[in-house]
Amino acid sequence: MDLIKNITNVRGIKCWGAHTGIKSLRRDLAIIYSEVPASAAGVFTLNKVTAAPVDLSKKHIADGKAQAIVINAGNANAATGKQGHEGAMAMAESLAEELDIDRELVLVSSTGLIGEPFPTEDIVAGIRENAVKLSSKSNAGSFTANAILTTDTFAKEGFLEFQMDGYEVNMGGIAKGSGMIHPNMATMLAFIVTDAAVEPKLLQATVKEVADRTFNMITVDGDTSTNDMVLVLANGQADNEALSSKNDPGYKEFRRNLEEMMIHLAKQIVSDGEGASKFIEYEIVNAPSQRVARTLIRAISDSTLVKTAMFGRDPNWGRIISAAGNAGIPFNYETIDLYLGDDKHLMKVIEKGVPEDFDRNVMKKLLRESHLHIKMDMHKGRASAKGWGSDLTTDYVLFNSVYTT
Amino acid sequence: MDLIKNITNVRGIKCWGAHTGIKSLRRDLAIIYSEVPASAAGVFTLNKVTAAPVDLSKKHIADGKAQAIVINAGNANAATGKQGHEGAMAMAESLAEELDIDRELVLVSSTGLIGEPFPTEDIVAGIRENAVKLSSKSNAGSFTANAILTTDTFAKEGFLEFQMDGYEVNMGGIAKGSGMIHPNMATMLAFIVTDAAVEPKLLQATVKEVADRTFNMITVDGDTSTNDMVLVLANGQADNEALSSKNDPGYKEFRRNLEEMMIHLAKQIVSDGEGASKFIEYEIVNAPSQRVARTLIRAISDSTLVKTAMFGRDPNWGRIISAAGNAGIPFNYETIDLYLGDDKHLMKVIEKGVPEDFDRNVMKKLLRESHLHIKMDMHKGRASAKGWGSDLTTDYVLFNSVYTT
Repeated sequence: MDLIKNITNVRGIKCWGAHTGIKSLRRDLAIIYSEVPASAAGVFTLNKVTAAPVDLSKKHIADGKAQAIVINAGNANAATGKQGHEGAMAMAESLAEELDIDRELVLVSSTGLIGEPFPTEDIVAGIRENAVKLSSKSNAGSFTANAILTTDTFAKEGFLEFQMDGYEVNMGGIAKGSGMIHPNMATMLAFIVTDAAVEPKLLQATVKEVADRTFNMITVDGDTSTNDMVLVLANGQADNEALSSKNDPGYKEFRRNLEEMMIHLAKQIVSDGEGASKFIEYEIVNAPSQRVARTLIRAISDSTLVKTAMFGRDPNWGRIISAAGNAGIPFNYETIDLYLGDDKHLMKVIEKGVPEDFDRNVMKKLLRESHLHIKMDMHKGRASAKGWGSDLTTDYVLFNSVYTT
Repeated sequence: MDLIKNITNVRGIKCWGAHTGIKSLRRDLAIIYSEVPASAAGVFTLNKVTAAPVDLSKKHIADGKAQAIVINAGNANAATGKQGHEGAMAMAESLAEELDIDRELVLVSSTGLIGEPFPTEDIVAGIRENAVKLSSKSNAGSFTANAILTTDTFAKEGFLEFQMDGYEVNMGGIAKGSGMIHPNMATMLAFIVTDAAVEPKLLQATVKEVADRTFNMITVDGDTSTNDMVLVLANGQADNEALSSKNDPGYKEFRRNLEEMMIHLAKQIVSDGEGASKFIEYEIVNAPSQRVARTLIRAISDSTLVKTAMFGRDPNWGRIISAAGNAGIPFNYETIDLYLGDDKHLMKVIEKGVPEDFDRNVMKKLLRESHLHIKMDMHKGRASAKGWGSDLTTDYVLFNSVYTT
């Protein structure tokens, strides 16, 4: 009896999440396993300092195949040198042995404190003890979603069922966010599994493109960690003919649902920014290109002045325009309309660059909501983009000043 | 876009879960609100020492009506005397004020350390700050499910949609379990909301009966806390004619789904027993009465010898028979069949009191699974019952010996 659907509802997927002792009282080791080898795709941190598991997973995913993912929380295995690389390899090797599969089919991921010696022995013992517990029960999915968390205050999960060219497909995902209060643990991880059959090359191209529109459009504190990683396994148990081209029937459905899943997980990550009081959706429509729309959104959503204005419930459109002007690309505010509000009601504050005489009392009320919406109409083309971010609060500053001194 | 259904998918329900500072980094204040007054039912701890919120909620639910529930985690408000009772009342009053409803419509619940001074001022400030954030977005449901946890390692949630005499009804529930490692925080809480219309008296009778078959049939460490509480709100937004008798069309469906929800939450609580390595389902069929079946299950599932045998993967049926014999009611093992196994395969170990020559190697393998099943056929009637418990592990003993010295 499963009253919550999660990654365990994807055909051929088993998983487990356990407490091994890296974290004092919480689950800290997760294993996701596909009963058959799956097409695998990943996007990894652009930080020049990469953690050992990032290096190893990049190598193991290069052939587009994987069958298992093992994740530990509590120690990032970053800046750990040779010992760290041996630790990541030992994770892959011990799990491969227990599952009787090639070690190249195992992807490895870590999150937690950077620069701590990696407790290889404890983690390998945990892997050996828990590999036999892999299960397709919904509780196993909950354990897994919780075992990858660090400072997160809730587990991030999503599940979708959809038709793809007549085949019923399942897709489940879990993620962990970047708790703002521990800059050393601000890793973003996401793991998505589906029973769709998709050729590795197409999967990789799709994952990269969709991640750019979703995970890469969120901002909490602007940092990119040494461990960031999004992995997708597609094990083909839905029995459809494997998607190999963007023109294949069903591809659009697959991509649309992958995007829905990634947006959902990305929004949950933003929602969990510690110290944040508001969730803000940024939207630009009628832009000359996707690139322009995304660049502007990133500039606005990263702006300290915009973020503090939202915290202060101040409809300070000047700061939004100013941030857009600082994005490093041409921007003419005299052609744009700007809207502010919550997720249900938007009020126009600028029309073609000219301030509107909006009702400030109504606006104040809208900005008290926890979900805000900032929308810009550029009247300059047909591209659009969205992004998501949090506000900047006194709590955030307080937390961070405590933790950095 | 809600990829996870939870209590926010029940019509007319809004909620929020926030961090107020009682716990250092985790969410610790939850509010559940029905837009209209709801029928309300509850079952409360039988411990003679009751926490202040238990006393207050019993009073406020006496008329069978409620509209909001406020829960804090981190401080149990138990054994806190006059200050504690004033604190519980202040929680109800401040939330009632913010929501502009009668304070008698607010139920209060607390979990956490016993005997600590209750931080009334901080909690009331948290209530005032967060009451305006009540939301029907799925994230709000996740925040809420997480804000009631203490030592739990995952949030416990369930959601059901069902037809009831032609009406579509939603039911969502959250719970927290009794982490074994902190005997002072071993509270069991469950909150269930539904948009079915049910008269208060029938709701109370049903909740009591179903809780007896579910929450009262689980055992982790045999303790009953000062704060245990199960609350159910039925707000009637499904627009069915209110159920008022067990013979009403739709009642059976309602009861069946309430039982499914309670079993699901109860099982999740058992799954989260820290230090436990196995989840064990106990089942007795063909018993002379429900009472007999339940009494035997409680005796067996509470037996230290049975629980350690399951930890040790030992098919020691003698201990099971012996525990049943110690249940304080007549029991003749010579008429029973006994089965042992995991959740998929059962092997008969006793037939009519005589040991079967079962394959011990196969059995050993079954008992390695994390979900075990013990089933007894009494051949004495038509009643049956189920119960759920955990094993008793070296980790449990280790944890508890550390925390009690």
